[in-house]
Amino acid sequence: MISKDTKFLIVGLGLLGGSYAMGLKQEGYTVYGLARRQETIDYALEHDMIDQGQIEVDDFVSQADVIIFGMYPTAMVKWIQTYKHLIKDHTLISDVSGVKTNIVDVIQDELKDKDVEFISCHPMAGRETSGIEYANTEMFKKANFIITPTDKNSQEAIEFCHDLAYTLHFNHIAILSVEEHDHMIAFLSQLCHVIAVSLMNTHDNSHLVEYTGDSFRDLTRIAQINENMWTELFLLNKEILLDEINQFIDSISHFRDVLQEENKEEMKHLFVQSTKRRKLFNKKDAKNL
Amino acid sequence: MISKDTKFLIVGLGLLGGSYAMGLKQEGYTVYGLARRQETIDYALEHDMIDQGQIEVDDFVSQADVIIFGMYPTAMVKWIQTYKHLIKDHTLISDVSGVKTNIVDVIQDELKDKDVEFISCHPMAGRETSGIEYANTEMFKKANFIITPTDKNSQEAIEFCHDLAYTLHFNHIAILSVEEHDHMIAFLSQLCHVIAVSLMNTHDNSHLVEYTGDSFRDLTRIAQINENMWTELFLLNKEILLDEINQFIDSISHFRDVLQEENKEEMKHLFVQSTKRRKLFNKKDAKNL
Repeated sequence: MISKDTKFLIVGLGLLGGSYAMGLKQEGYTVYGLARRQETIDYALEHDMIDQGQIEVDDFVSQADVIIFGMYPTAMVKWIQTYKHLIKDHTLISDVSGVKTNIVDVIQDELKDKDVEFISCHPMAGRETSGIEYANTEMFKKANFIITPTDKNSQEAIEFCHDLAYTLHFNHIAILSVEEHDHMIAFLSQLCHVIAVSLMNTHDNSHLVEYTGDSFRDLTRIAQINENMWTELFLLNKEILLDEINQFIDSISHFRDVLQEENKEEMKHLFVQSTKRRKLFNKKDAKNL
Repeated sequence: MISKDTKFLIVGLGLLGGSYAMGLKQEGYTVYGLARRQETIDYALEHDMIDQGQIEVDDFVSQADVIIFGMYPTAMVKWIQTYKHLIKDHTLISDVSGVKTNIVDVIQDELKDKDVEFISCHPMAGRETSGIEYANTEMFKKANFIITPTDKNSQEAIEFCHDLAYTLHFNHIAILSVEEHDHMIAFLSQLCHVIAVSLMNTHDNSHLVEYTGDSFRDLTRIAQINENMWTELFLLNKEILLDEINQFIDSISHFRDVLQEENKEEMKHLFVQSTKRRKLFNKKDAKNL
């Protein structure tokens, strides 16, 4: 459970890490920050996002009761391998990673001989921007917070993550297994990005800019993508994402074939089915407003 | 040119036909309406969208200087084949069809022995709704108006269409050939609809509703689709659309292959290219606001 004297260390003060720091500090907690660049620390101190911060990873780490990593997943794994000896007993550790396979198990295994607990979370916030200067707590208010516990996690840690999400004012809190999470994220997020990127890459389309309407803009907004982060996230979730891409290619190939055959009945069936399925997601829209 | 005593007949008072009637009436023109159902005529009269309306196609047609069809493309072709003898000399005829191949040539050929001119236009307005009760002129203010003249059309008719779009307050007016128009619409609109529909049809996804964020909702909004209209529009533009679908399948299959091979450099290249291309469309966003 979070108590008012819980001390947080945020490792990596980017968009999400910075927003966590900001939100926790606003709620009155003690927040420490570690970053790679002194300018980031200076920015965080100037904007009252942290109480103390530094770039050296030393016994600064041992002041924290809770450590939350705001880093890329593979960088987080390397950090823990390198500095785990600095983490004090009974520390609770969490993260913000967008993919869980090949990350959660690896870290829990890395820490198995220490008296600390790693519980993984995915705050589904953040968009096309990155960096502490875009940090804000408003984005949490419309976002889902997913907790992905394993059999290594305690009920207490799960409840802590609930408290954390509640403290940061997330809209909706859910618990999923690592596998469920990565299937969900492969379909709802990663496949959408693959589609948008592939549509923009289909052929040169610059001559069409002036005719573009909302359908195309809405569909391709996420084709603007951080190439380093998404390459990492896709590779971590490679097998599940490949399966989703292949299922989608089967689906659109089927549409292509029935159009080729002028099979009106099947075309109409596919439109009716997509309309019916998509309507379910509208209801949620209404609920979330 | 449109003059203040130009008399318009709108044939088919649906979302677009109704909105045309409403907009022209607001500007002070005489507007007649033809519809299949008396309730539609009653609605249009009650809401001051037309001066006179009826369901019988008889010498009512000969009162108009300009006839604009707000019908499905194939229904429009059949209407003209059936009733062209009722159209008086010197009438200018236009439409709102979303596809031009197999429509414009057919109608111009049908009318070649009469002293009337058919010039085709595509007002790129209208969304997931249909029917006169959704008619509004606001949607024109953000929309493109495309004129697709052929070598059968006069400069005067092209200028008339310009005036019409200006009168209805469209945001942007452009001239494209039938072929250019149908390539543009295949990529920017039809392919997007095929993608959204195929994504919703990939597999059952109702269990994912509560985790859905903006990316998925924005991408799949247009999976809610009128099965009759879009089946017709896709079949009319079949060859061009099939080519676009195949190019997209090639593009996403390439992405699948480089992910399979863990070819990080090519993945990053594809992300950088899609980001760069998509940014061009953002600029237009800004200009249109």
